[in-house]
Amino acid sequence: MSPLEIENTLRYHLDLLLPHHKTREVYEYATLPGGKLFRPSLVWSTLSDIDPVQYLQSINDKNSSHALLASAVEFHHSYTLIHDDLPCMDDDTVRRGKACTHLVYGEWQALLAGDGLLNLSYQLLCKSKHERILDLMRFFSWALGPKGLIHGQVMDLSEEMTKSFENTLRTHELKTARLIQVAILGSSMLTSTKNTKREKNLWKFSKHLGINFQLIDDLSELSEETLSEHETAVNPWLHHTEETYLETIKSLEKFNLLSLELMLTNTNKIISEYYQKMLSIITLKQVTIEKHLNKNKKIDLFPVILLLKQFS
Amino acid sequence: MSPLEIENTLRYHLDLLLPHHKTREVYEYATLPGGKLFRPSLVWSTLSDIDPVQYLQSINDKNSSHALLASAVEFHHSYTLIHDDLPCMDDDTVRRGKACTHLVYGEWQALLAGDGLLNLSYQLLCKSKHERILDLMRFFSWALGPKGLIHGQVMDLSEEMTKSFENTLRTHELKTARLIQVAILGSSMLTSTKNTKREKNLWKFSKHLGINFQLIDDLSELSEETLSEHETAVNPWLHHTEETYLETIKSLEKFNLLSLELMLTNTNKIISEYYQKMLSIITLKQVTIEKHLNKNKKIDLFPVILLLKQFS
Repeated sequence: MSPLEIENTLRYHLDLLLPHHKTREVYEYATLPGGKLFRPSLVWSTLSDIDPVQYLQSINDKNSSHALLASAVEFHHSYTLIHDDLPCMDDDTVRRGKACTHLVYGEWQALLAGDGLLNLSYQLLCKSKHERILDLMRFFSWALGPKGLIHGQVMDLSEEMTKSFENTLRTHELKTARLIQVAILGSSMLTSTKNTKREKNLWKFSKHLGINFQLIDDLSELSEETLSEHETAVNPWLHHTEETYLETIKSLEKFNLLSLELMLTNTNKIISEYYQKMLSIITLKQVTIEKHLNKNKKIDLFPVILLLKQFS
Repeated sequence: MSPLEIENTLRYHLDLLLPHHKTREVYEYATLPGGKLFRPSLVWSTLSDIDPVQYLQSINDKNSSHALLASAVEFHHSYTLIHDDLPCMDDDTVRRGKACTHLVYGEWQALLAGDGLLNLSYQLLCKSKHERILDLMRFFSWALGPKGLIHGQVMDLSEEMTKSFENTLRTHELKTARLIQVAILGSSMLTSTKNTKREKNLWKFSKHLGINFQLIDDLSELSEETLSEHETAVNPWLHHTEETYLETIKSLEKFNLLSLELMLTNTNKIISEYYQKMLSIITLKQVTIEKHLNKNKKIDLFPVILLLKQFS
């Protein structure tokens, strides 16, 4: 499933579920064009890895359970971004290379579009006829609700996140990993066979992916010569350097082992694109990154680079 | 089901679904004590009217489908109030006689608690084992999503609402009636018998109730000697006096007929409490109200009062 096809499905679902009114523009601005569409791509790649027959049956059906899940995950992601960018939250100005929704349409329109997309994600899911759809929705709402993603946002904004490395890891798990877990494990739940062992492994696999994803992203942020005050305050590589380093290596290693065991060829292809991009930033700017790190502790990035190369 | 028992169930669900963390306080502040609990009371009264046996089986089970729906409806209502009160929306300071959530805990905490409660409403619903729960969730998410309640908020804040009486009515239907419809019709959907004719009538009954509820509320607002600039700008009784008057009478009459046909004894008891309160304000302040109205058109409130008396 290409990003373009995924985007067409997003357009189709918006077209169907939004009122015929100028408010549409706000929703469309906030969700399209869809960027890399990492999370919905994982929904499709997981299905194609686990059940290629169901994948072929589903790709042309915009109301298939996986098409619904892919859009739900992406719209849910978009709602979190709109709300995160608001002045009372992170107060950001740029998102995906353009002005944030609230700067173009005003705060109340952005807030309501966020609420609308949150609702929409559930509206899509309950259209599925899959026998495990309620199971999936229980997982979805738990993972992204007050004990899940939203609690990650609370930990981040309350600055609890930076108080200890344990808190940082927990925040990454809730704020970043949960949505990735919903995409991957959720996709597996909607295949035609239930496999508890596979689901357990996918849980761990997607959890490590989410955590790595964020830790490597944090590392790549250090490629800038000068860091902003906020970046300096929250980057775990600067405050818990050794723990972050060891956790990144441990998590990449576990992730690698699970990846081999699960044989998710197409999923690994999507993930490797991400790591390739990160790897090229990190190797290109290794000197700058190490300069930032060495203020705290001498760290040799070579093992991290080697592990990233395995996925690229 | 008394308000106290409903509130105990709200507490039980919050306790189960919120993290053990000080963020709990924000959710609790915004939802408890629950006030009149009009919407969840309608869930229970509708069940007791339609299926007294199922009602008796459900009242002591905090995980019964109706207990889940009652809490979901109330938490959803609370989320809309928190978000409506934010500075970028209505910028209110007082809600249910106490300071708004964002004034006590800050805006980001209020915003996230709102998002959390929205999620929570779906999290509760998908715990139900009722065979029509997905039907109900499709109705719930449509009625309260971008084409429903949220579009009502858009029409209100964009001031489209006041452009014509048709727009006012549409806004009242979306912003006020939809959630009441979810409570009443939703409750009927989760009984043990499916009855399409009854559901059609309940749809109309709850729609008229929602619209009346709001129009009578608008009328009672005119009992103040002096009105704020905002009140003067949005009150349909001041701008579309005759249409509002005729629509109120028409809607009360239709509602009365449907009410007799449906024989919802317990539900009517709850509704009559509301109308009694409104009636006493309106009769007590009839002179003041008519003074505001007569600036536009001579209106005789007697037929409205008479109709309200029928419900009291």
